Amino acid sequence: MKIAVCQINTTVGDFNGNVEKILASLKKAKADGCALALFPELTLTGYPPRDLLDRASFLEASKKAVETVAQGAQGIVAVVGTLLENKGSGNALFNSAVAVKDGQVLYTVHKTLLPNYDVFDEARYFAPAAEPAKPFEYEGLKIGITICEDIWNMPGFETHKLYQRDPLTELAKHKPDVVLNLSASPFHAAKLSTRKKLLKAATETVNAPVVYCNLVGGNDELIFDGNSMVTDVMGNTAQLGKSFEEDYLIYDTSAPSKMSTTGPLSDIETVHQAIVLGTRDYVRKCGFEKVLIGLSGGIDSALVAAIAVEALGSANVMGVTMPSPFSSKGSIEDSRQLAKTLQIEFKEIPISPLFEEALKDLTPFFEGKPSDATEENIQARLRGITLMALSNKLNRLVLSTGNKSEIAVGYCTLYGDMCGGLAVISDIPKVMVYELAKHINQHKEIIPEATITKPPSAELRPNQKDRDSLPPYETLDAILRLYVEENQSPDKIVKAGFDVGVVKDIVKKINQNEYKRRQMAPGLKVTTKAFGMGRRIPIAQKFKEK
Amino acid sequence: MKIAVCQINTTVGDFNGNVEKILASLKKAKADGCALALFPELTLTGYPPRDLLDRASFLEASKKAVETVAQGAQGIVAVVGTLLENKGSGNALFNSAVAVKDGQVLYTVHKTLLPNYDVFDEARYFAPAAEPAKPFEYEGLKIGITICEDIWNMPGFETHKLYQRDPLTELAKHKPDVVLNLSASPFHAAKLSTRKKLLKAATETVNAPVVYCNLVGGNDELIFDGNSMVTDVMGNTAQLGKSFEEDYLIYDTSAPSKMSTTGPLSDIETVHQAIVLGTRDYVRKCGFEKVLIGLSGGIDSALVAAIAVEALGSANVMGVTMPSPFSSKGSIEDSRQLAKTLQIEFKEIPISPLFEEALKDLTPFFEGKPSDATEENIQARLRGITLMALSNKLNRLVLSTGNKSEIAVGYCTLYGDMCGGLAVISDIPKVMVYELAKHINQHKEIIPEATITKPPSAELRPNQKDRDSLPPYETLDAILRLYVEENQSPDKIVKAGFDVGVVKDIVKKINQNEYKRRQMAPGLKVTTKAFGMGRRIPIAQKFKEK
Repeated sequence: MKIAVCQINTTVGDFNGNVEKILASLKKAKADGCALALFPELTLTGYPPRDLLDRASFLEASKKAVETVAQGAQGIVAVVGTLLENKGSGNALFNSAVAVKDGQVLYTVHKTLLPNYDVFDEARYFAPAAEPAKPFEYEGLKIGITICEDIWNMPGFETHKLYQRDPLTELAKHKPDVVLNLSASPFHAAKLSTRKKLLKAATETVNAPVVYCNLVGGNDELIFDGNSMVTDVMGNTAQLGKSFEEDYLIYDTSAPSKMSTTGPLSDIETVHQAIVLGTRDYVRKCGFEKVLIGLSGGIDSALVAAIAVEALGSANVMGVTMPSPFSSKGSIEDSRQLAKTLQIEFKEIPISPLFEEALKDLTPFFEGKPSDATEENIQARLRGITLMALSNKLNRLVLSTGNKSEIAVGYCTLYGDMCGGLAVISDIPKVMVYELAKHINQHKEIIPEATITKPPSAELRPNQKDRDSLPPYETLDAILRLYVEENQSPDKIVKAGFDVGVVKDIVKKINQNEYKRRQMAPGLKVTTKAFGMGRRIPIAQKFKEK
Repeated sequence: MKIAVCQINTTVGDFNGNVEKILASLKKAKADGCALALFPELTLTGYPPRDLLDRASFLEASKKAVETVAQGAQGIVAVVGTLLENKGSGNALFNSAVAVKDGQVLYTVHKTLLPNYDVFDEARYFAPAAEPAKPFEYEGLKIGITICEDIWNMPGFETHKLYQRDPLTELAKHKPDVVLNLSASPFHAAKLSTRKKLLKAATETVNAPVVYCNLVGGNDELIFDGNSMVTDVMGNTAQLGKSFEEDYLIYDTSAPSKMSTTGPLSDIETVHQAIVLGTRDYVRKCGFEKVLIGLSGGIDSALVAAIAVEALGSANVMGVTMPSPFSSKGSIEDSRQLAKTLQIEFKEIPISPLFEEALKDLTPFFEGKPSDATEENIQARLRGITLMALSNKLNRLVLSTGNKSEIAVGYCTLYGDMCGGLAVISDIPKVMVYELAKHINQHKEIIPEATITKPPSAELRPNQKDRDSLPPYETLDAILRLYVEENQSPDKIVKAGFDVGVVKDIVKKINQNEYKRRQMAPGLKVTTKAFGMGRRIPIAQKFKEK
């Protein structure tokens, strides 16, 4: 039996658009002689639909979409993800897969394991399958159908031991010929190698090849990388779908798969492609064509501009330099050079007159207090006003340019440089920002060399440098990773070899700045723990961690 | 046996502070001859700790706090809420209650029903109790101990049918003499009457009085109203703790309770007291003394200023009027009058010079496009800069003043009037804003009459009125309630008697403005569905609901 693996880019709530993509894939699969076509998790609704799931009409729309797909699946089985109603106790919905053909529903299965950690809230909406998993029998084959997390809990691969059941072990009892999986597994760096190990363990558990169809595309903070896979009977990767774009594989149950010869992407290239896709999809799925970026002459905004050009094309990107009295000539020149190389529209809008006027108008109310961060924030916020005015007038989405390191310690101004619809690199630590910049420059100087080599500075007061108030970024990023991604205590981080004063200072800054992150634009997740929906910290709290 | 019900105001993560409050209560309870003292849910950690629960050191701190309380409970049993470790499969923690005395833990119970809807994420952190509930036997009494949601699922009171188990039915088999409940049940309007019905049904289920200790205090978006209760054997409310402040009741199992004679608060007064408490606790628990409010002369900012004065005292509140060329003289005068009545510090900082400068500097980049919302937003954002500059320089938290109706339809400027640390009335629809203002004025004119009677206007262009672009607020608020709080579809709302064009326009505006709400300050929840942590809507989505 030939099975088409349809790695498509769905949009949340876009039932018509998602159905169109499914029908187009079915047409192709049928022409290629496939008997079955497999799609990603919650194909019809897009993923994650979040609280749209609380709306009864969302379920109704799903039901209609299933009917449309079933009617469209003439002579071919479509296995699509959808919502089904739970009439028993527990949450009102199931996260389900249906096998439909010729207007009929042939088979239905519900997701058993519902992730409810990090960015996942599935226990908020769904009830788990009550019955043990059983294969769908079709054309003499026993086809196990599983949904995402269902294959993440088999013996020997208990990544979190969160669940008591293992659908793969349940399926194995039936000796399936093949096991399908509909996934919406978000990207983080190095996740592909985890998934390869996962599918090997899954294959061994069910003693059958696994056909894994993963979602591709950006949806708010989450980037789905595709990388659909088919394993051979040994559990090795026999076929691998493209990273970060739609793809279509054919797996023939009666012929051994040949491994595609394209090598894996480097880790830095996966992050690069991830944020390009995440940016493109966020902008497009929000209905925007064009974006706007404040260019400071620094590496963060240069990187974001380069990413935006890859994502949207030069014609859709505008760079704006907004010099203040403390901006160096080099910074303005580097911005201009960057815009020239990227072939993007470029504006120079000095904020100095506005800044002078603001100081004149506001200083009388400062009760005689000396100059401090207030004056720096005024500059950042005047730039924010400038960008937002252009955004409003020209209908361009503002991309914000803060990196994870500075957002962590609050080295950013709320309502200033934090303005924007999408925080492109908010999950990329500063050291990785440099790596990405160098990676992008590997064949040609796109980001000006001076931007990469000069010491980072916010240029909000004379001769200001990041290193005046922060440890070297290598140190900061390492502490950040231990504290934020691994939830290690300050004591433990100090024991790992960091200076106690530095650790205390960084941890204090991270916690003090939670209020800024609460009001941050959605940011693209590329690490195992990003600020945003996957990290929910109270603001009014007094935990003094040792 | 005399049982002390200790309705205290805990702070998230403040183990020392929470333990201090517990020990002070124990001292008092012992002096009053109580054998047992009952505290709210997760007494030691505060509620809700959210992702602080992911930190191993948070559990460690809880363990130490239990030891301290156990040592402090000399000659009296303290029943406190804490974290315990789950060594089996499932989440790593239990949401537990321990009965401690003389340095020993006498009894331990875990929460069985874990709410995971609206503002609750308990399935993210906790494993449910595996064993059926059994009473704690002490001094010849069988004392059932339950935690919050555990008493919300008995037969005849299945508000959501989310769970298969009912700890009260489990306890009833043991014929308990009394059932205790540790709660952190957040306020929304009219919740007290729901809880009275709940406790009546609970009493009937267990055939014993129920002693209910609810948390009091604000924690970020959530306000806990206290209102701890004791039922008599018939299930009627025999004792009722204070609303919105700490309290302490004594229940004697061998003497019938006498109902306190204080009548219930009116619905509008509960909302009033709720936001006063929520404001006070957010400001104080964040470590601020003083606040700052932009006064527009309109009713929203006037209400917030009045609330702030009640919460923090006149001496800690500053009002700032920031007239633009479109501000009416009346508005400035009304603001001044309000500040005078409230006896708060008052500043007048015109934004006109900055606005002129901004137009001069920015208009050349507007590509010749006509005046639109851009120019209005610039004014709002210059006010935002002004408030934030004073906030930074004078260390005052900015309270933002948007109401639920305008935040719903996006009648507010991101980074402009949305600036602030706390959105005090973001869950109060405009009609209720008027009710609250009149309620506050009932004995004395605090909010100027002109502010209440004049037609609402943003005053961002000549002769602008809210009603130019919005339906009457009675209509808007009714549609909002059906769409946001009840998740009704537009079709259904139209069938309820609303104009189809108006409904479509409002629903479209609500969805289009999700991106603004994502970047909103935390807002105090007072209805059954507030914008914020309890309503999680994707931004890049295309659901066209009918």
